[in-house]
Amino acid sequence: MESEMEHSKTGVVGLFRLRVKSAMGNATARISTAGRDIVEVGKDDPRRAIHSLKVGLTLTLVSLIYYYQPLYTNFGATAMWAVMTVVVVFEFSVGATLSKGLNRGLATLFAGALGVGAHHLACMSGKIGEPILLGFFVFLQAAATTFMRFFPGIKARYDYGMLIFILTFSLVSVSGYRYDEILTMAHRRLSTIFIGGATCVIVSIVVCPVWAGEDLHNLIALNMEKLGNFLEGFGDEFFGASADTDHAGTTADRSKSLRGYKTVLVSKSTEETMANFARWEPSHGEFRFRHPWKLYLELGALTRECAYRIEALDGYLNANLQVPAAARESIEGVCRDVSSEAAKALKEMAVSVRTMTRHAALADPDLLLGDCHDAVKDLKALLKASQWKETDLLAAVPLFTVTSLLIDVVKCTEKIAERVQELSSLANFREVEPTSLLEKPAPRAGGKNKVPKPAVVPDVECPPPHIVLTVHEMAPENGRAPAPLNTS
Amino acid sequence: MESEMEHSKTGVVGLFRLRVKSAMGNATARISTAGRDIVEVGKDDPRRAIHSLKVGLTLTLVSLIYYYQPLYTNFGATAMWAVMTVVVVFEFSVGATLSKGLNRGLATLFAGALGVGAHHLACMSGKIGEPILLGFFVFLQAAATTFMRFFPGIKARYDYGMLIFILTFSLVSVSGYRYDEILTMAHRRLSTIFIGGATCVIVSIVVCPVWAGEDLHNLIALNMEKLGNFLEGFGDEFFGASADTDHAGTTADRSKSLRGYKTVLVSKSTEETMANFARWEPSHGEFRFRHPWKLYLELGALTRECAYRIEALDGYLNANLQVPAAARESIEGVCRDVSSEAAKALKEMAVSVRTMTRHAALADPDLLLGDCHDAVKDLKALLKASQWKETDLLAAVPLFTVTSLLIDVVKCTEKIAERVQELSSLANFREVEPTSLLEKPAPRAGGKNKVPKPAVVPDVECPPPHIVLTVHEMAPENGRAPAPLNTS
Repeated sequence: MESEMEHSKTGVVGLFRLRVKSAMGNATARISTAGRDIVEVGKDDPRRAIHSLKVGLTLTLVSLIYYYQPLYTNFGATAMWAVMTVVVVFEFSVGATLSKGLNRGLATLFAGALGVGAHHLACMSGKIGEPILLGFFVFLQAAATTFMRFFPGIKARYDYGMLIFILTFSLVSVSGYRYDEILTMAHRRLSTIFIGGATCVIVSIVVCPVWAGEDLHNLIALNMEKLGNFLEGFGDEFFGASADTDHAGTTADRSKSLRGYKTVLVSKSTEETMANFARWEPSHGEFRFRHPWKLYLELGALTRECAYRIEALDGYLNANLQVPAAARESIEGVCRDVSSEAAKALKEMAVSVRTMTRHAALADPDLLLGDCHDAVKDLKALLKASQWKETDLLAAVPLFTVTSLLIDVVKCTEKIAERVQELSSLANFREVEPTSLLEKPAPRAGGKNKVPKPAVVPDVECPPPHIVLTVHEMAPENGRAPAPLNTS
Repeated sequence: MESEMEHSKTGVVGLFRLRVKSAMGNATARISTAGRDIVEVGKDDPRRAIHSLKVGLTLTLVSLIYYYQPLYTNFGATAMWAVMTVVVVFEFSVGATLSKGLNRGLATLFAGALGVGAHHLACMSGKIGEPILLGFFVFLQAAATTFMRFFPGIKARYDYGMLIFILTFSLVSVSGYRYDEILTMAHRRLSTIFIGGATCVIVSIVVCPVWAGEDLHNLIALNMEKLGNFLEGFGDEFFGASADTDHAGTTADRSKSLRGYKTVLVSKSTEETMANFARWEPSHGEFRFRHPWKLYLELGALTRECAYRIEALDGYLNANLQVPAAARESIEGVCRDVSSEAAKALKEMAVSVRTMTRHAALADPDLLLGDCHDAVKDLKALLKASQWKETDLLAAVPLFTVTSLLIDVVKCTEKIAERVQELSSLANFREVEPTSLLEKPAPRAGGKNKVPKPAVVPDVECPPPHIVLTVHEMAPENGRAPAPLNTS
């Protein structure tokens, strides 16, 4: 009996110890997971850590109004509005900060003026009429402005301004019922909001600026490159790795690089948000104030159109198709050519956009897509040939679909090339020597190279310059694509 | 000379008149355009107009604190926070309002408590140390919280709370440097924010509530229906209208209904936002508190996957293909069957989801997609047949691609059916008699109907019940899909 009790005691103590141990283990595991998350978010885009420090700095700067007596004597409790402005206006990119700051400033100005007017009108209607008239004004204004926020054009660019308009009008007109010095109050509030907004804009531009326009520019280039990556790997993935291909990296790595295009499918809203912000940004680097951002959206739409075709193509990878060997062999070479030539063209355009340079090949679609067209012609000739009579058509259908989709992809690539060319002339891309971008590692098997072979044929081990790119994964949830390190 | 001057005078006056006339004409045109826009935005979703009135009402209600002396004596200038809370918290849907209100309330509570703590700590460090320590706290807190806002999980659900956390902590701790009655201030602010937030939530739920969950539910059903619309019209559009088809509406109408699926391609972010809001919503109508919203996202992703295939199919419409007539004729019937059967299955699932009902056919994929599978089998048999030996393969490739893509679409539809089935059991869809939804207008040509023919075969002029749906166009810019009138 005693031993039993002792046993049960040990049991309870033991259980307790175990629980504590497991709880501590859990806590440690959670902390280490959180730590890993922090490092990952920071590594994904180091500018995030810098942005956080910038916000802290600006907020501390603005709160000096409270600490520094002469400033505080001037503004008093309205100093609060400066702090508030910094918290809500400071955004990741310069464009977003400018957009919010200007929206807030202008909306406060107009709504303040209107609010003072409404207050005066209401004052004239006597003690009883005043609150009724004020209430009516507030109701009317809030309802009308809220409705205006549903207009797509207003929503995209002035949504925040509309919100601040309702806020300021209500505060100024209604609190006018209690304060007599309404003009002083409005003036003080406007000044502190101006101080807060200006501090945000200055810090945002001066300390490691993040330009929405530059991010959009890089995102568009990155997206073209991702399509190129898929097409580059497609041949090996569909037909099996050829003997002379040297596979760097594991299967997981290859699959990640192949499937990178998936983020392109859903990048529309990110691109639109960035373009909206980019429009507010002043001239910086190679981007003028009226840079053709709209063209980037068109380019993005075409890239997405191409990505939809690629998504359909992707359905034929790893699908365990029982394609007749003879049909497969006869078509393999040309299919590989089409996809790798399209990949090359896309990647060349990506480099051209990213570095804002253009060369002769880009200006002449025949030169850029020439090899691609040759490959498509070869493919079509092959389909016209008579060796198919004996083929099992049902089994060969997926093969035909793949070729047809590849031809569609080439058509999309042509459209992209047209837009890139338009962009390069509108945005004044620098002219460069053709060889610097269009270096070909080796002449295409069976293809006719229209560009003279460069003097030094680079070794296969040494990738051509347009492949040496730092490809960051985009985090779509945050709606921000990091700029590759080598361009910043 | 005089006449010349007179002429020139008349000229100037005439020019002025013309200018004024054209300016007035312009203004009139602009006003009428704006008027049309207003009517359109309101017509698109009448709930927008109601929402605007609700915001006006709530704001007027809350500003009573200023007008009503006993309330004002209690709160004083902090009444401003109630107005501010209403302006920023009141959103279109109940879920969004609740999410923002709770975020704001909880963040204010925690940040206020922390701010008071920071203030006390700083007070203990003397006259010189106080502002330095306060500044340090504000910097640290702002930087850390801003960095946390980059975490995808936090960004999706607590972004606004994080913002308010920074705001409140900074305001409380810093203004504590100037006021001694920091606790009274914090308490008053919290009360007014609570009053503002609660008024928003109550008005939002009581007056014509807009549920994000219901919108998501309807959007998912609408998207499936849009895919169905494309597939339904595909046969006629690709092979030309058949003689026995009665085309209601103009070409523009048909094209609009066909291309409706384009919004499905880019609906990901809308769906995710809605699902995030839906999670905050209390039980309402047929939706419980823990309705399987995550499943809707999966269903949405599968619908999008199907839409990508359809986008590839769409590329073959109006492409001026020179398909050999013999090949076209032999394949036409089966292709039409596959696409119309897939359309029927998608539309049936859309009705089932929208009305939250299920019937035997939905539970048994063989019954729902049986005709579809039969059609695919027929198609495959046709491809296996030998009549293709004489066909020009190159010209026929687009035809094969279309059939292959159609088969892919059927595969996607199968996956969608699995998820719909899962949803119907998790969300307790009502069981209904099979005939009520699965009524077939007429037996499929050449197909084997596994469901007994309904007693009354509906006339072709009278569309079967699953087509009588009010299809509203979604306005993707607003991120809100209107609920069809017949379900609200």
